[in-house]
Amino acid sequence: MSVVFARGFKANGLACGIKENGDLDLSVVISADGKPVPCVATFTTNRSAAAPVQVSKDHLAKSNNLMVGWILSSGNANAATGKKGVQAATSMCDALGSELGVDGHYVGVCSTGLIGIDLPVEKPLAKIAELVQGAGEEPRHGDIAAEAIRTTDTFSKFATYEGSGYRIGAMAKGAAMIAPNMATMLAVITTDATLSQEELYDALKEAVDESFNLVTIDGCTSTNDTVVLMSSGLCQADEHFRNGLKAVCKSLADQIALDAEGATKLVRVSVKGAVSYSEALMGARKVAESQLVKCSFYGEDPYWGRVASELGSAGIEFDLERLSVSYQGVVVAAGGVAVDFDSKELALLMREREIEVVADLSLGSYEATITTTDLGPGYIEENKGTS
Amino acid sequence: MSVVFARGFKANGLACGIKENGDLDLSVVISADGKPVPCVATFTTNRSAAAPVQVSKDHLAKSNNLMVGWILSSGNANAATGKKGVQAATSMCDALGSELGVDGHYVGVCSTGLIGIDLPVEKPLAKIAELVQGAGEEPRHGDIAAEAIRTTDTFSKFATYEGSGYRIGAMAKGAAMIAPNMATMLAVITTDATLSQEELYDALKEAVDESFNLVTIDGCTSTNDTVVLMSSGLCQADEHFRNGLKAVCKSLADQIALDAEGATKLVRVSVKGAVSYSEALMGARKVAESQLVKCSFYGEDPYWGRVASELGSAGIEFDLERLSVSYQGVVVAAGGVAVDFDSKELALLMREREIEVVADLSLGSYEATITTTDLGPGYIEENKGTS
Repeated sequence: MSVVFARGFKANGLACGIKENGDLDLSVVISADGKPVPCVATFTTNRSAAAPVQVSKDHLAKSNNLMVGWILSSGNANAATGKKGVQAATSMCDALGSELGVDGHYVGVCSTGLIGIDLPVEKPLAKIAELVQGAGEEPRHGDIAAEAIRTTDTFSKFATYEGSGYRIGAMAKGAAMIAPNMATMLAVITTDATLSQEELYDALKEAVDESFNLVTIDGCTSTNDTVVLMSSGLCQADEHFRNGLKAVCKSLADQIALDAEGATKLVRVSVKGAVSYSEALMGARKVAESQLVKCSFYGEDPYWGRVASELGSAGIEFDLERLSVSYQGVVVAAGGVAVDFDSKELALLMREREIEVVADLSLGSYEATITTTDLGPGYIEENKGTS
Repeated sequence: MSVVFARGFKANGLACGIKENGDLDLSVVISADGKPVPCVATFTTNRSAAAPVQVSKDHLAKSNNLMVGWILSSGNANAATGKKGVQAATSMCDALGSELGVDGHYVGVCSTGLIGIDLPVEKPLAKIAELVQGAGEEPRHGDIAAEAIRTTDTFSKFATYEGSGYRIGAMAKGAAMIAPNMATMLAVITTDATLSQEELYDALKEAVDESFNLVTIDGCTSTNDTVVLMSSGLCQADEHFRNGLKAVCKSLADQIALDAEGATKLVRVSVKGAVSYSEALMGARKVAESQLVKCSFYGEDPYWGRVASELGSAGIEFDLERLSVSYQGVVVAAGGVAVDFDSKELALLMREREIEVVADLSLGSYEATITTTDLGPGYIEENKGTS
């Protein structure tokens, strides 16, 4: 389903040979009539931004945010590949544009995979005609497109929202190098709701800030993160569009966290009672990115002392004597010291797949939540080599 | 040897029962004649600073940096223990002071171990008389004191320096919650060189900044970090004192990194060619604290793409096209792209215990080096439970 749920879009996916094992590795999402449509995107803030990010930004600027579609490859990030990388990304856009009868700057490109290795661009180029010819609006076309952007993802990720007449559909990938600073993964979202480029961008920015940017797996901001939103404009939008878009982005963000490399837990870290939202966020992020705290999640151990220590070094206003901490709703510390609780009951609750930790600073009225995972041997196994 | 290498100090260690397995857990370092001597210290910047840190700061202020000695316990950090914790730390100082015939505020206290659990203070209190009576100036007294401050340390850490007549001796502990922000571990350094409190403090501050503060294991700043420097003033100092002190601190810092929980590699991450020292340091720290980069070290994989990605998101001036990266002296990337190298030769070099990574930004003339470790399953095994 994914990106073809909204009317007016075609998609497809196939194996072009970037992945040596023959897995699917090339996707396309295009407007159904082959004409450019309003399109906005947000990108990684990493200064090592990959060639596809550089080229796509340039194309969005040249086309005044009108795009006919996006070409996405997996298995090689085309990052840290210099001028050759930029040429490769540009040639992929040119090839898709040529196939659809438009200039290459009406096309965007995303790549994900290994960094620092030249993309064998002749492989995707040789398959673009076949990819476009096979593209369609059936659910299976959306499914195969979502499938072909996976790298170490164990399942393909998509989300849909049905409004009053209009629809939003989306696909995403992401399993590591996940940290909140823009998107830290790839996502393509389509809608048939009619909105201006400004409205689309505002809605996307807000949705990304409240979803992908509140997930951190390892504190590493990828070189290739891109979230794209295209609108075919075939239906009327209404005042619920922004919330629908947020729901879609939140669903994708949760799926990415759930599928994080080697993780066994999805953890919501909330900091309450902060003096400002930004301090609540800094505190929650410091706790959520702490290797020691994440090891405790893996061990299902409500070791709140590590949470207190991270909050104390988060650079925010903090008074240990006011701190209370709960795991799964069970208060384990209050007034900065341990309190009695039913440890057997909590041990059972800590076995759940999803863990909720709440630290109340009791200093103000602001609250923020970051979604993260545990840190276990699976993450190391997955990442000890080039992947 | 350790803290009794310098003349004018006694030390001792014993098991008082904080550690339930009966291991050594209580140490003392005191001036040999039982009179207060010049003493300076640096402490954690964590706002969850533990009770012993709060009490020791207060005592140094009250005594105008004159101390008769320090009492150190291991197994329980006396952190996040509220007013009871402060009372416990104070009573340990009072007991040692009383034993030596001085006010409690001439005594400092350090604790290390579990956070958020009340210290069973009656146990150290019951043993302080025995601890002082057994204290001496023999090498074995220094050895047992260094032994008794260990927690998950697999070996005890000490360093000595012999100047022109004067000496410096030191012991330290530390194996996790190691991040550069003050000291992130416990160390007691003694010297018989005569210096004013101001000279001692300046020398200590500089030595700590250039040693302990350049080590990061997990980015976690402990609640209890303390580095103490006491001078008996029995000998003349000379102009080499500061360098001697630095050498002692660097040796202790390396020992801490080598003994980091579950680590298999000691890694020096250098960033060269930065526009300022602080940017070089920020870049090196971002790389050294990256979970993904550290997994590569564990896997002995020179995956420079992750280094480039971390530098690009470090918030420093950065131009990927100018970046070159080497592992063990072998250049793997130049001008922001991969270059050919002998991968078999480098694979052999990556097997060494100590790894050197140099990233040259080619933007300026500043350089900084951070010492860190790899991230492997051992770290997780050690930290998944309360430890």
